[in-house]
Amino acid sequence: MHGPANELPIIAADILARLRTQSPRVHCITNSVAQALTANVLLAVGAVPSMTIAPEEIDGFVKRAGALLVNLGTFDAGRGSATEIALAAAQSANLPWVLDPVFIDRSEPRAAYAKTLLTRKPTAIRLNRNEFFELAGAGADEDALAKFARKHGTVVGLTGATDLVADGTRLIAIANGHPLMSKVTALGCAESALVAACLAVERDAWRASAAALLAMGVAGEIAAKRARGPGSFAIEILDALYSLDRDALVAHAKVS
Amino acid sequence: MHGPANELPIIAADILARLRTQSPRVHCITNSVAQALTANVLLAVGAVPSMTIAPEEIDGFVKRAGALLVNLGTFDAGRGSATEIALAAAQSANLPWVLDPVFIDRSEPRAAYAKTLLTRKPTAIRLNRNEFFELAGAGADEDALAKFARKHGTVVGLTGATDLVADGTRLIAIANGHPLMSKVTALGCAESALVAACLAVERDAWRASAAALLAMGVAGEIAAKRARGPGSFAIEILDALYSLDRDALVAHAKVS
Amino acid sequence: MHGPANELPIIAADILARLRTQSPRVHCITNSVAQALTANVLLAVGAVPSMTIAPEEIDGFVKRAGALLVNLGTFDAGRGSATEIALAAAQSANLPWVLDPVFIDRSEPRAAYAKTLLTRKPTAIRLNRNEFFELAGAGADEDALAKFARKHGTVVGLTGATDLVADGTRLIAIANGHPLMSKVTALGCAESALVAACLAVERDAWRASAAALLAMGVAGEIAAKRARGPGSFAIEILDALYSLDRDALVAHAKVS
Repeated sequence: MHGPANELPIIAADILARLRTQSPRVHCITNSVAQALTANVLLAVGAVPSMTIAPEEIDGFVKRAGALLVNLGTFDAGRGSATEIALAAAQSANLPWVLDPVFIDRSEPRAAYAKTLLTRKPTAIRLNRNEFFELAGAGADEDALAKFARKHGTVVGLTGATDLVADGTRLIAIANGHPLMSKVTALGCAESALVAACLAVERDAWRASAAALLAMGVAGEIAAKRARGPGSFAIEILDALYSLDRDALVAHAKVS
Repeated sequence: MHGPANELPIIAADILARLRTQSPRVHCITNSVAQALTANVLLAVGAVPSMTIAPEEIDGFVKRAGALLVNLGTFDAGRGSATEIALAAAQSANLPWVLDPVFIDRSEPRAAYAKTLLTRKPTAIRLNRNEFFELAGAGADEDALAKFARKHGTVVGLTGATDLVADGTRLIAIANGHPLMSKVTALGCAESALVAACLAVERDAWRASAAALLAMGVAGEIAAKRARGPGSFAIEILDALYSLDRDALVAHAKVS
Repeated sequence: MHGPANELPIIAADILARLRTQSPRVHCITNSVAQALTANVLLAVGAVPSMTIAPEEIDGFVKRAGALLVNLGTFDAGRGSATEIALAAAQSANLPWVLDPVFIDRSEPRAAYAKTLLTRKPTAIRLNRNEFFELAGAGADEDALAKFARKHGTVVGLTGATDLVADGTRLIAIANGHPLMSKVTALGCAESALVAACLAVERDAWRASAAALLAMGVAGEIAAKRARGPGSFAIEILDALYSLDRDALVAHAKVS
């Protein structure tokens, strides 16, 4: 155990409470498939989404936001320009930002672009095993995660059957979640937006990332109990996130 | 009381009945986050959505539609060109059109563009308090609404805890709705599309706007009783709109 | 009866089982309104969606996919270029592809483009009566369907109150489905993606198309029993597709 496993549910409950009180806005450059679910996940936890990628608007939207998400799904020229402007705005406003290098294992140009974004110092990265391998050139074992996080000065949130969250020195494993989560499009994308929302109210990026992944995993388990398939699951997970509290987090957390 | 408060539920039921019978098509230039929900709200009330913004297609789509919606969310160059063509087509076909200046309080270029659209004489405008302030330079009291509506020859549908609908001479307050409505992305955008649908079957734009806002508010209350959170609420409001009838409108309406 | 009506439920169950085992990826060039539902339908049956239209990425995405969908909704310049690259990639990789000429009856430029796509030999086409008339210049009777399929070397899946699936020699009628299916946006678009998924695991394009239309129709009937309106129906049909099995297909199929 490398991190405060017992404390994480309490930390996550506290961060969720801050989201509901402070209602930070999260600006999301994300793929068109994921936009509506991402917005609804943010609203369910008390945050506020904005999603424009229009060049003349994005600077103003990002500068006044609490955090920025850059998701590389359905990435095109418009999203590329928007990302450049958004990252400059985030840097000048000292805003935390999350990189979700979705499907870079399936597209060489996208992988190459993701690697250039690493030099822009994402506050946190949320990805799966294949995407990590593509980005880091290494398997997703604990040492590789820590080394990668240290090298790039970031926090890695790796999701899968067990989620791992690593910065250079701390690592935590979260064994929550449910297989139905992979049967709803863009739930991983929305989870990255939740990481960004948590970063808007919690400066410790490792805590913020772990809290987001725990919250989504526990909500997924609660939703799975009520769902009959992926359609109802997608609805139930929004309801579960909306009412997720300390008791549910403590009762469900499988953290080590 | 400035309008036919007692009559509005009956008027709304009549307009909804016409939507189901006539199935008008509403062409929507709207943001990518809102497209699916907007289409589903239109289908739920019996209207038919179309959403292309391709320059070579939009003239044909708009000219044969029953009404046009221009929503400024995720506004970019493509949507800008589409809007110009669509407004010309709407004008030549004498089509009613609705302006939804979404988030203009967060983006100066978008606010400037919304102001130019005012000169194109929207049949109705649907917005919230902050957006009205940005557009009108005045707080959303009854006098300011009436003055603005008169000046621009339009109907203002202002949504919030209590909705207000004003033309130059008539004003009605609708105290329906539920806080969960603000936890579902794009429900306001979809409500503007519902105003457009009502305009397609009702020439009195003030009646059409008030009917749409009442229908959405009552559907929201019915949905909230059945929902456990924003996920199920979004589903329930579509079901509620689908079966909304005169009895439900009369029973729930809080109009003055 | 021109086809193996009694066998279709068994064939469809077998194809669905292969989808769940093989998890083929289906690359979808589809309209922005339909993307999320299309992805969720594919995931519900065990397939994997991808949706990028970025010019530098689409060749790689298509070549490694199991099938391609080209849907002409919200068709713009970006989707046009993407389609050209995608079709070249599909041809070089000998990939099956499905054409969904959505709303070509409402847009002359789109109809003209659909006709040029016919010369690119779609493996299957999924459309409704009005779209078929626009594409074929003939009413959708059985002879016209067979003649069209023969002429263009394709399979036609015509959906409506009764679905018809024709290649040059075989024809089957499927009388499943429910009126609520027309009250959910993009369900027809998603059905075309399901045809593409079936093509990825079944070389006989007529069987694949008929299986997809039967599966969607039966799922629609199951969903309608549980739904209270179009909102819950959209959720229930995903759940029904997820657990659709041989018994349900045999019990519900109305095939002749």
